[in-house]
Amino acid sequence: MWRSAQPGSFRAVATEFRSPLLIVGIRPTPEKLVRRSAYPGRSPLAIGSGWSRTWTFLEGEWHEGNVPIMGPRTHAAWLCSIVFDGARAFEGVTPDLELHCARVNDSAAKLFLKPTVSTETWVGLAREGIKKFDKDVALYIRPMYWAEKEGPWVQAHEPESTRWCLAIYEAPLRTPRGFSTTLSPYRRPTLESMPVDAKAGCLYPNNARALFEANSRGFDNAIVCDMLGNVAEFATSNIFMAKDGVVFTPAPNGTFLAGITRRRVIGLLRKSGVAVVEKTLTYQDFEKADEIFSTGNYSKVVPVTRIGDRSLQFGPIYTKAREFYWEFAHSSAVHSGATASSAVSPGS
Amino acid sequence: MWRSAQPGSFRAVATEFRSPLLIVGIRPTPEKLVRRSAYPGRSPLAIGSGWSRTWTFLEGEWHEGNVPIMGPRTHAAWLCSIVFDGARAFEGVTPDLELHCARVNDSAAKLFLKPTVSTETWVGLAREGIKKFDKDVALYIRPMYWAEKEGPWVQAHEPESTRWCLAIYEAPLRTPRGFSTTLSPYRRPTLESMPVDAKAGCLYPNNARALFEANSRGFDNAIVCDMLGNVAEFATSNIFMAKDGVVFTPAPNGTFLAGITRRRVIGLLRKSGVAVVEKTLTYQDFEKADEIFSTGNYSKVVPVTRIGDRSLQFGPIYTKAREFYWEFAHSSAVHSGATASSAVSPGS
Repeated sequence: MWRSAQPGSFRAVATEFRSPLLIVGIRPTPEKLVRRSAYPGRSPLAIGSGWSRTWTFLEGEWHEGNVPIMGPRTHAAWLCSIVFDGARAFEGVTPDLELHCARVNDSAAKLFLKPTVSTETWVGLAREGIKKFDKDVALYIRPMYWAEKEGPWVQAHEPESTRWCLAIYEAPLRTPRGFSTTLSPYRRPTLESMPVDAKAGCLYPNNARALFEANSRGFDNAIVCDMLGNVAEFATSNIFMAKDGVVFTPAPNGTFLAGITRRRVIGLLRKSGVAVVEKTLTYQDFEKADEIFSTGNYSKVVPVTRIGDRSLQFGPIYTKAREFYWEFAHSSAVHSGATASSAVSPGS
Repeated sequence: MWRSAQPGSFRAVATEFRSPLLIVGIRPTPEKLVRRSAYPGRSPLAIGSGWSRTWTFLEGEWHEGNVPIMGPRTHAAWLCSIVFDGARAFEGVTPDLELHCARVNDSAAKLFLKPTVSTETWVGLAREGIKKFDKDVALYIRPMYWAEKEGPWVQAHEPESTRWCLAIYEAPLRTPRGFSTTLSPYRRPTLESMPVDAKAGCLYPNNARALFEANSRGFDNAIVCDMLGNVAEFATSNIFMAKDGVVFTPAPNGTFLAGITRRRVIGLLRKSGVAVVEKTLTYQDFEKADEIFSTGNYSKVVPVTRIGDRSLQFGPIYTKAREFYWEFAHSSAVHSGATASSAVSPGS
């Protein structure tokens, strides 16, 4: 009943889909629609307003704005059967775009969704979509898979009903002003209790709780520990610290997504001769750090300027890490589509 | 910028919303729409097909079908800022409808969403919507809140952008044929690591993993333990067992939602003189049980007919529990809107 686009045929027409105009029982006669358009604010089909400029590739076409993709019956809309990934376009470059597109397919399989779009197709669509925006504007590039239908038990979706889209929109890069952080009372779940090995939407409400709780105590962000009490990451991104010239970051232990930008920054620092140690770290280690910074696709490399009561400065290692990342992003390796492993290796 | 309907004014017009026709940049001129309607299968706005009959109250009106509610920019569509609840209408009754409607508001607050619809309004809308269906058809009644917009950190939503709808649709009650179960390798998260105190959509992908894994080994369902290794619930619902005439069910320990139907069944069994013990239980306890059954809103009371290699019969206590539930559902207390506590108490 459900047909997903295959790699190489992503413009296939999905004849199973019906227009929302038909779905809501409105016959799209000219008279009716003229009447409706006179009251746009009363539309029952509205999906918000005030969005930054957005283009989405869905069902074989590009659409501008927050095009409807889910209704109340859509499995993902209430039972969260959705994975995504995020890449960036800024200053004419798209660092690690291929890796982000490959990872969304990996995440889909881990959530029992059916990844039907090849990495090459995602990348090709992203490059096509980027051209719809001004060159000087920073973009967020977000491929998504989600389930439309439920299976025999409602809680589990029907994998064959997997749908997908690629959303691209204007999202300024955060100015690295620095942010404050604290210890969160919330923890990262384990792989047994949540799909922490996938970039799954269901992981984020817990991060949101950590942010709301930290904000309520006057902090911008929070350091979240794993179930063993060791530091896992920020509520928003991966975490690094520097002490006596050496960089430390939590060793991947399956409780947080060891990110593409994290891996990239580790490689760039090591290539320049900075020692980076991946190990088990406690909140107390961070309290005594010379520098703390975060890495993530959305904001790249951003410094911490306060942990608890203690102020921190923009440090030399943070500054280097951000510079190295920008150099990398503008290097030819990015444009030739090199993989992280080859680009991180000194030989590449 | 965002305005949610207040209790008592739920038909307020939300002028901030725009029609998807406008959102996707299509000018709704008669010519364009006539052309589009000739190719309904190619609609870029499609939200699936083949749904059972569905009515949704959204933005002050009832809509038939899987009306669009989310686009790719909608926070809940990718970051899962959504809570819901589920009640049932069948055979002319709506047991515990008020409690389910009250709980969705409680869940919303726990996920930092803004619950703007009173329990009375939810119930009133549900009763209005039920009338749109044939009396003999079993319905699922699902109030939902979700976030439309992101906050300063993308991971956390903007609470003021909370939206809501009430979806009602045909969903047959499962015939209690019995199901097989096994021990899941997956676990329930803790309250520190997931909002297990709310009926939040983000909790379900882990349940889905447990179902997919159990299915891959030939079982219908799975028993999921908490992080301490004690039984929490089924992947789909709460769990009960009977041994030597006494009923046992896991004591609420904050790792699973101790459901409204669970509480109701405990009360009904006790009222009839059956001892029900809430305590810590292991998978081994269930392997040795005389009877195992599940309780939940969706399927009410359903028996297990196999655990691992061992077959079980429809037992006398399961049979009683289901009968008691149906008697309760058809009792006058349900129709007068009694609360669970009063209805469960022998005096009510």
